[in-house]
Amino acid sequence: MATQEFSSFKREQKDLINLMPLQTGGILTDAAREALVEFGDGFSTCDFCLGNLCNITNPPIKKFAHELLPRFLGCDVATITHGAREAKFMVMHCLTNPGDTIIVDGNRHYTTVVAAERAELNIIEVPSSGYPEFKVNVADYIPLIEKHHPKLILLTYPDGNYGNLPDAKRLGGVAAKYNVPYILNGAYAVGRMPTSMMEIGADFIIGSAHKSMASAGPCGVLGMKKKWENILLRKSAVYKKKEVELLGCTVRGVPLITFMASFPYVKERVNHWDEQVAKAQWFSQELENLGLKQLGGKPHRHDLLHFDAPAFYEISQHVPERGYFLYKELKKRGIWGPQPGLAKSFKVSTFAASKEQLGFVIDSFKDILQKHHSKAV
Amino acid sequence: MATQEFSSFKREQKDLINLMPLQTGGILTDAAREALVEFGDGFSTCDFCLGNLCNITNPPIKKFAHELLPRFLGCDVATITHGAREAKFMVMHCLTNPGDTIIVDGNRHYTTVVAAERAELNIIEVPSSGYPEFKVNVADYIPLIEKHHPKLILLTYPDGNYGNLPDAKRLGGVAAKYNVPYILNGAYAVGRMPTSMMEIGADFIIGSAHKSMASAGPCGVLGMKKKWENILLRKSAVYKKKEVELLGCTVRGVPLITFMASFPYVKERVNHWDEQVAKAQWFSQELENLGLKQLGGKPHRHDLLHFDAPAFYEISQHVPERGYFLYKELKKRGIWGPQPGLAKSFKVSTFAASKEQLGFVIDSFKDILQKHHSKAV
Repeated sequence: MATQEFSSFKREQKDLINLMPLQTGGILTDAAREALVEFGDGFSTCDFCLGNLCNITNPPIKKFAHELLPRFLGCDVATITHGAREAKFMVMHCLTNPGDTIIVDGNRHYTTVVAAERAELNIIEVPSSGYPEFKVNVADYIPLIEKHHPKLILLTYPDGNYGNLPDAKRLGGVAAKYNVPYILNGAYAVGRMPTSMMEIGADFIIGSAHKSMASAGPCGVLGMKKKWENILLRKSAVYKKKEVELLGCTVRGVPLITFMASFPYVKERVNHWDEQVAKAQWFSQELENLGLKQLGGKPHRHDLLHFDAPAFYEISQHVPERGYFLYKELKKRGIWGPQPGLAKSFKVSTFAASKEQLGFVIDSFKDILQKHHSKAV
Repeated sequence: MATQEFSSFKREQKDLINLMPLQTGGILTDAAREALVEFGDGFSTCDFCLGNLCNITNPPIKKFAHELLPRFLGCDVATITHGAREAKFMVMHCLTNPGDTIIVDGNRHYTTVVAAERAELNIIEVPSSGYPEFKVNVADYIPLIEKHHPKLILLTYPDGNYGNLPDAKRLGGVAAKYNVPYILNGAYAVGRMPTSMMEIGADFIIGSAHKSMASAGPCGVLGMKKKWENILLRKSAVYKKKEVELLGCTVRGVPLITFMASFPYVKERVNHWDEQVAKAQWFSQELENLGLKQLGGKPHRHDLLHFDAPAFYEISQHVPERGYFLYKELKKRGIWGPQPGLAKSFKVSTFAASKEQLGFVIDSFKDILQKHHSKAV
């Protein structure tokens, strides 16, 4: 029967040392894992709904959305979204018309482009400095703003390719000067490192709960200045409690409860960001000592690291598994991270692994290089 | 500390006899509960993604989305959505322009209106027959189609207020004759009862996994005729694997895995729909014997039942808990269903409860009436 294989799903990666940038910030806390089972049934979030998800008091979504998240994000108003991309589309859909222009950084996530396509916008990119640092200089927004009069600007902080942290606060000053609404896409920042919308001077801050806030997916948050509330969270003309742009309610299910259950832990962990940065810099240096080359800014200021790995690429050209050999070698050692198939260059994140685990990862890379080099000799 | 209460979330309703219409079709199977824990971590769905959620082969999302769901829905093409409302908005956003008109049934869910507001559409409603049956006669679409030339028509099948099943197939004939795209909102049908888009003659079929397919929320499905694929699932001009209207991927998380894990069970259970209908009719008759009055069509053809309860309303006028007395009396007996606060009229669903449990519910209603009547004497 065709559906027999659907009776049980196992995930082999669950208990490995996790270096996958998409996943290291989204590993659940024990509290979130309990909440999963407790609120797993469809619509169990809504037992005591009186018409608006973010006003539910049992479980305490109201307090979370209206008090804790705004304080955490340094914003006036926050709401729950299906994720960062949906938040970006919401802002674009509310603040622009088809044919309008927006300006974004050249390191933007692909979903920034796709959201702009869905909103039928022209998208202009501020180029990065290119190989090997790929840095975005926010001063480069200025001539483009003067030329194109965008309806919105967006900065990816940090970007998901190189983990670069551009000068978001300086761009806040630019946005204020030119009076252009400014979206900070903090999908890899909010929940990992201290990030305040007000301090940066953005109009909107976007976080991804499944990417960086120890939450099941999909789930995210959109914070904003008070002045945007009446536009972004405008109510239906027919249903006075329902927000049009959210289609009434967004995450009416268990990912939101895991987000809440992990929140005390996430709130605490951002205070240890300097330790995370030190760990990432040490790891990067150790891999460079093995002949890999870290791309992006140096010294690196984020756990997301992108490496060129010419030695691994060389091996991949001579083994039957081709680029998959690296994934297989690492998996044998209980390590999950570089995207299966990639060996020439790959991304890892040091966020979830301890220094001891990373030491083992470094030794494993060393072993793999030695093993294949000695074979080649 | 403000976040202390966030360390643990308990749901008292979890193990009660569940009659809440929103919830009875979304209770997880054991397989789904295991999948929850296995794939709970953020983005764990995407371990082996090659660029498109619905093409992931491990876990077998590709087979689910491209083979099993289309066969189950009787459609050509299916995709995963965050839920029914998001699917409705997707179709509206793709097939209309602001200012266009669509025609929907008067029993439509509130999210149909809100989705149309988000898409800036004029919405014209085919009125129901009103109290007490609230039936929608699909022939009433015809003069409105002739007058307003809508870009879309939508039928709610069944509606979430009365559980009425209008003649969806006849409306398929109307849609074909007038060549107007037809959305069947089957949020309370797909996963409960056999429902085939092709047989009905709709262009789009929408299902809610957390409402009717034993899945964690939020999660849904949109099925369509092949002819709409290039519009609804159009690819990004920049990222050739990414679907613009889905913002790349929708349910990149564990609700989708629970949907898949429950699917063999859901596929089987729709074959027992006649037993569900018999159970609902019997329950309705028993409550009518106690003096309640079932609204909506009779004999009723769905597990969602709406009752006027003048005797309970009378009691609520004389007790300190007012309308909440019914919720409290039922909770004491291990029953969860009518919305807390409602006593004058309320909705229940017989879908998840066994006949024995429903017998206990009937006896409980009887007890509550007797207890309060004897008090009043």
